[in-house]
Amino acid sequence: MPNPQDPLLAPLPIDLPPVERVARMPGGFSAAGTTAGIKASGNQDFALVVADGGPVPAAAVFTPNRFAAAPVQLSRANLRATGGGEVMAGYARAIIATSGSANAATGPAGDADQAAIGRAVAVALGATTEQVLHLSTGIIGTRLPVDRVEATIARVVAGGLAATDEALASAALSLRTTDSTTKMATVRAALPAADGGTPVTVTVSGICKGVGMIHPRMATMLSVVLTDATADPATLRTLLRSAAARTWDQLSVDGDTSTNDTVFLLASGAAGAADATTNAEARATLAAAIEAVARDIACQQARDGEGATALITCQVSGAADDADARAVARAVISSSLVKAAVHGRDANWGRIAGAAGNALVAERAVLEAAGMRPDEATARASQPAAVDPATMRIAIAGHLAYDGALGGPTDVDKAAARVSMSAEEVLIRLDLGLGEGKGEAFGCPLTEEYVRENSEYTT
Amino acid sequence: MPNPQDPLLAPLPIDLPPVERVARMPGGFSAAGTTAGIKASGNQDFALVVADGGPVPAAAVFTPNRFAAAPVQLSRANLRATGGGEVMAGYARAIIATSGSANAATGPAGDADQAAIGRAVAVALGATTEQVLHLSTGIIGTRLPVDRVEATIARVVAGGLAATDEALASAALSLRTTDSTTKMATVRAALPAADGGTPVTVTVSGICKGVGMIHPRMATMLSVVLTDATADPATLRTLLRSAAARTWDQLSVDGDTSTNDTVFLLASGAAGAADATTNAEARATLAAAIEAVARDIACQQARDGEGATALITCQVSGAADDADARAVARAVISSSLVKAAVHGRDANWGRIAGAAGNALVAERAVLEAAGMRPDEATARASQPAAVDPATMRIAIAGHLAYDGALGGPTDVDKAAARVSMSAEEVLIRLDLGLGEGKGEAFGCPLTEEYVRENSEYTT
Repeated sequence: MPNPQDPLLAPLPIDLPPVERVARMPGGFSAAGTTAGIKASGNQDFALVVADGGPVPAAAVFTPNRFAAAPVQLSRANLRATGGGEVMAGYARAIIATSGSANAATGPAGDADQAAIGRAVAVALGATTEQVLHLSTGIIGTRLPVDRVEATIARVVAGGLAATDEALASAALSLRTTDSTTKMATVRAALPAADGGTPVTVTVSGICKGVGMIHPRMATMLSVVLTDATADPATLRTLLRSAAARTWDQLSVDGDTSTNDTVFLLASGAAGAADATTNAEARATLAAAIEAVARDIACQQARDGEGATALITCQVSGAADDADARAVARAVISSSLVKAAVHGRDANWGRIAGAAGNALVAERAVLEAAGMRPDEATARASQPAAVDPATMRIAIAGHLAYDGALGGPTDVDKAAARVSMSAEEVLIRLDLGLGEGKGEAFGCPLTEEYVRENSEYTT
Repeated sequence: MPNPQDPLLAPLPIDLPPVERVARMPGGFSAAGTTAGIKASGNQDFALVVADGGPVPAAAVFTPNRFAAAPVQLSRANLRATGGGEVMAGYARAIIATSGSANAATGPAGDADQAAIGRAVAVALGATTEQVLHLSTGIIGTRLPVDRVEATIARVVAGGLAATDEALASAALSLRTTDSTTKMATVRAALPAADGGTPVTVTVSGICKGVGMIHPRMATMLSVVLTDATADPATLRTLLRSAAARTWDQLSVDGDTSTNDTVFLLASGAAGAADATTNAEARATLAAAIEAVARDIACQQARDGEGATALITCQVSGAADDADARAVARAVISSSLVKAAVHGRDANWGRIAGAAGNALVAERAVLEAAGMRPDEATARASQPAAVDPATMRIAIAGHLAYDGALGGPTDVDKAAARVSMSAEEVLIRLDLGLGEGKGEAFGCPLTEEYVRENSEYTT
């Protein structure tokens, strides 16, 4: 008989602060979302986020795709310039985001388009072009209507920006393509004050888009995280990469890594909190807040994946280490066969075992970002994760399905499991019985609707 | 205007001998296929292949899945034993194959079942248990009906084996699960004679199954290749791994690597050909024959992939080297978005570019098998392939869709491409414009039918 107290039948405890699924504008920023006329539908397709008091510390992670879009390449160059050569961290005054056209694989003409857009933002704000960061999403291979975007920039800067939650939510709305929800998450946390007085409340608020071509490697599909905490660019970069390695890099909708994946993290310092660069308590609290926002957004992205009918979370404990745990979790939620079985509400643990047995540890850069020493990361990168059928245990939606120590299959009640798997969130829990490593990953079912959406003939 | 003589609009020339899609029993072997009563349907589920004159040189490649099935583990141990410790090459008298139950994740009980089956074969043939190799395919986590299998072994050895093409085809039929076709391929080639006289004809004949959980890593889903050529175990191993690296390791149906993937290659020496271990001409001709059989079977497997409506072949030229070319080809045919677009007959070159831009070179073992030096393989394994958007060109079903040197998109006639993509084979050609490297990969469209088949509730 299964033991109802078995921790495998419940979610792993996650030690992160609670998240509100709303946008809350942190101090020091203003934003706007509007329609520039990029989308034929007339839906919002333009967002601008501005650091009101001048350039602020900024960090980013970008897709490693060799077909990285023009906005990715320009943002990368700009951050290098403002950061004095520091990799992917510098200073930014504004983020310009467009949706409807990815401006990817558009060649030198696309690069020129994006540069023109950057100049228009810089001129309107009195900034340098290097202080402007770029995001774009939509169809690969189509050009942006630069004149319309330029006109919208002028109009928005002249009177459209607001330092309100609504303005940030409107910017989030503009990121959407075929998203069925607007994805937003906010954490508020008490940090030591800069002046040593009463702790101050800082806000960390993230907005992003889904919904397909999502299998992040060192980034995720268009995310912006703003905070009024204080930190230098290098610190922001470390906090962002560490959070991404545990959250966005553990997200998959369809196994395809986008050409436009980008996450920006900007810190205005407006809350008057102690500098997280040097204050350990501020740093730890800010790190947890950023990771909580990233994790919640990743769940929202998986849940709204193309054709998705549920969120699949795979949580792994008992791994040799955290890198192995994350590898196994990612392998399970990335498996087409597991995803199809969850769609059919079928407690098909054999496919989960098969996927876990194929798990490969992440790439070197991801391992290092998650805190592994460079030499160990080099040795471990892309190597098989330690998995032993004799010690592994698998529970699906609270039903124990496989226990290696008991000889394997448990005669799981598939009808009962089917009922439990009909929820909006399906939890797959694995314990590897090998060590203390823990990790999780986020995915979604593979459905006929996913195939339909992505096989429709586009002209 | 596109140049109709552009080599990108045609398939890459493949320098391999022609293949017949039939089974031809090589000298020195006999076989049988029959019904043991494993499958509830009553369909054939049992095959036995026997080397008539005693143990013959044998080599294998196996799935690296940590949940490798009992037949995989037992075969691995047996080959080690007969090969004197040599890795995955030794001597074999027989191959016993069952379908309907994978005997994977069945724990010690499943191991005991497989061992009992091996003993029954050994007793019936007067062989040692180590000279028996094992294959099984079907549902993960179910047990084999050992008594029925044992009874069938006795019956078949007593009078069911035949040294005929029909017997080998019947063995192939027994490998099928939900396959809609029986997969067989044969090459006949002239090799130097062992006695230095007139060249002799050797036969290389392969049988295998499809159709899902196919994304081979150093193996493929249940394949048996028999030849009456002469070679020692280590040579067979080298020829098999080299062929697999260029063919089966470039095959994907759904991105999931099976727990049961196995390829066996047995050489009876019955044709009287010169020993390929030492005769360079015999070795080169035999290598090409084996690769031709493996390539054709891989195409048959992709074409019959679950829910597949066509074969997708991606051929890449102009890569920095062959490893990069194979990486890019594999990334393209493995992309869910590319596969869905081909299903929709949509010349969506942006998804092809995006997939190519994410390509990672294969694992170290695959690179070494394909002929790369160990130190280079270690450095290159799982690293990004060199891809430059400025030099890449993409053609879909004979239509040029992207040309980096001309600024990118070519305004491809999507309606015309749609007609060309309605064929049973869709060719995606890429030229990277970086070097002389070439490679190809084999996949199939992602369809609603794939999702339906794999999301049906199984009890």
